[in-house]
Amino acid sequence: MKIIRSISSMKKCIKNERKKGPKIGFVPTMGYLHQGHISLAQQSVKECDVTVMSVYVNPTQFGLHEDYKKYPRDIKSDAALAKEAGVDYLFVPSDSDMYPLGFSSKVIVSNVTQMLCGASRPGHFDGVTTIVSKLFNIIEPNTVFFGQKDAQQIIVIKKMVKDLNIQLKIKALPIVRDSDGLAMSSRNAYLSKAQRLEALSLYQALQKAKELIGQGECNSAKIIASMKRLILRGKSVRIDYIAIVDAEDLSFKKHIKAKVLIAIAVFIGKVRLIDNLIIKV
Amino acid sequence: MKIIRSISSMKKCIKNERKKGPKIGFVPTMGYLHQGHISLAQQSVKECDVTVMSVYVNPTQFGLHEDYKKYPRDIKSDAALAKEAGVDYLFVPSDSDMYPLGFSSKVIVSNVTQMLCGASRPGHFDGVTTIVSKLFNIIEPNTVFFGQKDAQQIIVIKKMVKDLNIQLKIKALPIVRDSDGLAMSSRNAYLSKAQRLEALSLYQALQKAKELIGQGECNSAKIIASMKRLILRGKSVRIDYIAIVDAEDLSFKKHIKAKVLIAIAVFIGKVRLIDNLIIKV
Repeated sequence: MKIIRSISSMKKCIKNERKKGPKIGFVPTMGYLHQGHISLAQQSVKECDVTVMSVYVNPTQFGLHEDYKKYPRDIKSDAALAKEAGVDYLFVPSDSDMYPLGFSSKVIVSNVTQMLCGASRPGHFDGVTTIVSKLFNIIEPNTVFFGQKDAQQIIVIKKMVKDLNIQLKIKALPIVRDSDGLAMSSRNAYLSKAQRLEALSLYQALQKAKELIGQGECNSAKIIASMKRLILRGKSVRIDYIAIVDAEDLSFKKHIKAKVLIAIAVFIGKVRLIDNLIIKV
Repeated sequence: MKIIRSISSMKKCIKNERKKGPKIGFVPTMGYLHQGHISLAQQSVKECDVTVMSVYVNPTQFGLHEDYKKYPRDIKSDAALAKEAGVDYLFVPSDSDMYPLGFSSKVIVSNVTQMLCGASRPGHFDGVTTIVSKLFNIIEPNTVFFGQKDAQQIIVIKKMVKDLNIQLKIKALPIVRDSDGLAMSSRNAYLSKAQRLEALSLYQALQKAKELIGQGECNSAKIIASMKRLILRGKSVRIDYIAIVDAEDLSFKKHIKAKVLIAIAVFIGKVRLIDNLIIKV
């Protein structure tokens, strides 16, 4: 595995690889890799001839009072894990290379960025679509792998790809969970033992929703109320949102119908965690 | 020459061409082709293995009260001229293909879009950068040819390409003028004979500026005043702007120094015309 630290060398490597006409898979990450990221890399290695993983904590997708500075970083461990997963190129660009002085462009998706995480984190998705556009242009992948945990992110990026006619495939892979059900997240590293226990309620609430829907409940408000009760048992919990939305366009669904996304964002202390479940009825 | 009317067939053609590994040249236009456009096509044919020209009157780059609906169109003549110039593919997409229902993405460049035409035509450059991004993604050209007449447009698109790491070269070719000096423009078709005579003052004013600078004048305000006097002789003339700016970042220059862009936008009746000159001192 080669570690690449500049845009120009990344472009050169890709240009050389391209001559052989391979299928290039790409896994964009913010690093501090966990099994969720690794599952994406492994899938890319399986499907593609060359796999590029990027590790870049993108400043423009963090809000002013968010955790950009203290976001966990461990490039040594990331490199070891990526290598083990079969990644060919680990792209670790610098801020000054990605956002040089005078940088002034943006890629923006409206509508599907307005609700859920978009409502709680204004500007977040502008940062995501801009950095992802840049990475797509640098790497020109055939297939890009994202984790289903960031459900809205996938919908936003798919919309951008469709609207702007970007020529690649987006693949969403299932959420990877710890044995107790907690969705893997780099931000889990922030949790104390007690907070980690409380964080289990996200998964439990999603399971509760699934159970209720299985029993025939189709009133979203009732399901959400039941999820809230379960989550609010935790002492250090503050709910950002619990929403039941259309799995394609994220419009709110009063009644469970067709394919819905049940999405949760919760603060455990200062740590914001998200989780979700797609249910077809 | 093949005329291509859908994004999907354009992509297919390019994919086939790509297999042979050629250099693809691209000339984006709004059609109603004149010698300015043709000079771009000819240069592309000279430099590249395959030349794609697009003809698309992009609605999103027109303001509410601008001339989108009556913008001149003549696809038959365009096709004949493009063929004669050696164009391989004429891409003529439909609005519903370019902006399908629910379209909600935008590519935006700030700073260099705020002044000159950007100030007079709010949102214009957002429309330009968005459509150009789409076309770049569909055609994936190696080199794109633009006319120097839209000087700010070139700077904006170069900025977008640099910021978003888009892998292609932008080439700007000189303004093509009628024998009397009038810069070629599809909008010249709107002009009455009398208006066309008045429109000559744009070029004359630029020549006046060049002459003054040649004589050692380096005070921009004085040069602009002299240009204004010359242009305002016309009865149906309203000046939108006359500006002397840095040729790279478009910042206003009080004193002529290094490489300046002298840019004019003038209404002759309801017809908005632009022209410019780059001067190195």
